[in-house]
Amino acid sequence: MTSTNVTRSICILGLGLIGGSLMRDLAARGVHVYGYNRSGAGARAANDAGFDASDDLADTLRRAEEDKALIVMAAPMPAIPGMLDAIVDHAPSCGFTDVVSVKAEVYALVKERGLQDRYVGGHPMAGTADSGWSASQEGLFTRAAWVITYDHAPDASDEWISLWTDVVRMILAVGADAIPARVDHHDAAVARISHLVHVFAETLAIVGDNGGALAQSLAAGSFRDSTRVAGTQPSLVRAMCETNADAVVVALDEALDLLNDARASLAKPRPDISQLADSGYAARVRFEARHGARGESVSPVKISSRPLLRLHPGAAGWVSQLVQAESLGARIDIF
Amino acid sequence: MTSTNVTRSICILGLGLIGGSLMRDLAARGVHVYGYNRSGAGARAANDAGFDASDDLADTLRRAEEDKALIVMAAPMPAIPGMLDAIVDHAPSCGFTDVVSVKAEVYALVKERGLQDRYVGGHPMAGTADSGWSASQEGLFTRAAWVITYDHAPDASDEWISLWTDVVRMILAVGADAIPARVDHHDAAVARISHLVHVFAETLAIVGDNGGALAQSLAAGSFRDSTRVAGTQPSLVRAMCETNADAVVVALDEALDLLNDARASLAKPRPDISQLADSGYAARVRFEARHGARGESVSPVKISSRPLLRLHPGAAGWVSQLVQAESLGARIDIF
Repeated sequence: MTSTNVTRSICILGLGLIGGSLMRDLAARGVHVYGYNRSGAGARAANDAGFDASDDLADTLRRAEEDKALIVMAAPMPAIPGMLDAIVDHAPSCGFTDVVSVKAEVYALVKERGLQDRYVGGHPMAGTADSGWSASQEGLFTRAAWVITYDHAPDASDEWISLWTDVVRMILAVGADAIPARVDHHDAAVARISHLVHVFAETLAIVGDNGGALAQSLAAGSFRDSTRVAGTQPSLVRAMCETNADAVVVALDEALDLLNDARASLAKPRPDISQLADSGYAARVRFEARHGARGESVSPVKISSRPLLRLHPGAAGWVSQLVQAESLGARIDIF
Repeated sequence: MTSTNVTRSICILGLGLIGGSLMRDLAARGVHVYGYNRSGAGARAANDAGFDASDDLADTLRRAEEDKALIVMAAPMPAIPGMLDAIVDHAPSCGFTDVVSVKAEVYALVKERGLQDRYVGGHPMAGTADSGWSASQEGLFTRAAWVITYDHAPDASDEWISLWTDVVRMILAVGADAIPARVDHHDAAVARISHLVHVFAETLAIVGDNGGALAQSLAAGSFRDSTRVAGTQPSLVRAMCETNADAVVVALDEALDLLNDARASLAKPRPDISQLADSGYAARVRFEARHGARGESVSPVKISSRPLLRLHPGAAGWVSQLVQAESLGARIDIF
């Protein structure tokens, strides 16, 4: 048995961009997968495409309980409390994970309900500005980072270790890189490289729009790329940034310091933004070097540029290994 | 004779990304084109590719003077004063244009030398983060905005009107959209949709880098796209932002107001960034609607989404027509 061998059934709650793409990938690999979608239209679209989907949440969860399925809450933050309550009611012994882009707030809801031993946090760093089943696609997760949390590992039962292992297997089955990170470390990191990016994109879009028809006519590739994620539904941007507000404020304060310095330098009689330009260039070059193998390879086989750590879940010292992997941004495999 | 019929020889000073691409496109359309490049290696690379290039500036300009060529200064800001002096010395009757991304500072240098009646400002909104002859390519300017300034039009001689017409013809010959804009309006617009984008990209790259290995490992498409132009050589970013500092400060102050408001909203007990998220989304949707035909068409024929105004240079009311085109961000054709 390889580490990508998924033996449990997978029950996906929410068949949008992430949940739908996960369903497609798992089904393509022969995994037994079915799901629930709140809108009947979405569920029917999945049925029409040959997938096993329902718009009855309780019914779907009872089926998961019978199957001892692994449940994936593939819905944004606002839907999570209701889903957790439904899992408690209808699938009281199933383990579950999620795909929400913040982890502290989800973990707080899990702990409020005393469900830590049945929950492993997840966050696939993949997506487009589009949403819904119609945006789902095979291969969305190939070589994407998929964070898996492990705050509960020091206190874990054998069941939790088995659940955690199954979540890693599911992640590897769809071609993603499983990156262990504790809840707070994850949230601090994504505030910098995702949520702040959204705040900046919204801001640039507005300042560009304020320039009127001439500015909009002159806007070219750099403006298009840097404002792309401003095309994300505002409710999703709010769900990300507002539920991770503390970490976003830390990142935003760092950014504001840099921008205020740049502003002061530009307002001088002899403007000089060499410090910002040099540091930004160096940072981007480091990013490119790190991601080089992933981003620019012409090979059809995408090779991960992330270091790999192999570990045996539950073995002596495995939590220390997870901490080490986290500090390196490493992907893990299990044996 | 169509409006894209270029009858003058074109002499390009600087054969990097912009100058080299312009040379390739003009040559492909049968225009008589030759150029100068400061580095002998660049000039030789152009020669090896079958183009007419030299690393002797004075010699190239004397040739332009003999030909009555249109000179294109395809070099960044720091090279412009020296090029202007060389034009005065060696090509004293040629008309000339430039491709610098700021127009007020170039125009000030032109006016210092009393050359207004021989100069038409230009700025092609095209490029990549790469530079040099090796980055040049055919088709770089297809449907790109190429600003052409007209501040001198109310006082223009017949020679200047003829020069201006020839610059428009050259722009249309390489498939770009000629967008008239006065120097200050151009600089205010590009501060918003280009220079601020660079300042933001540098800032995001640094804040992301500060997050260490985990944050860098999790960085995905949105971070990559929004920091792409931080890969531009710092000297080019400085040349753009520092020489357009006043306009960049105006745009940056608008951005800082939005970011400070967002920061305050996120620091509240109940964070709420709906104002930023809604306005940013609406602005991006307007941008997409405006650029739709250009950006997402699957047709191999790129159709401009910009309104078209036809005008006859020098005819009664043509300056008013230019002002109108500018206010619409419209492209022009000449007849």
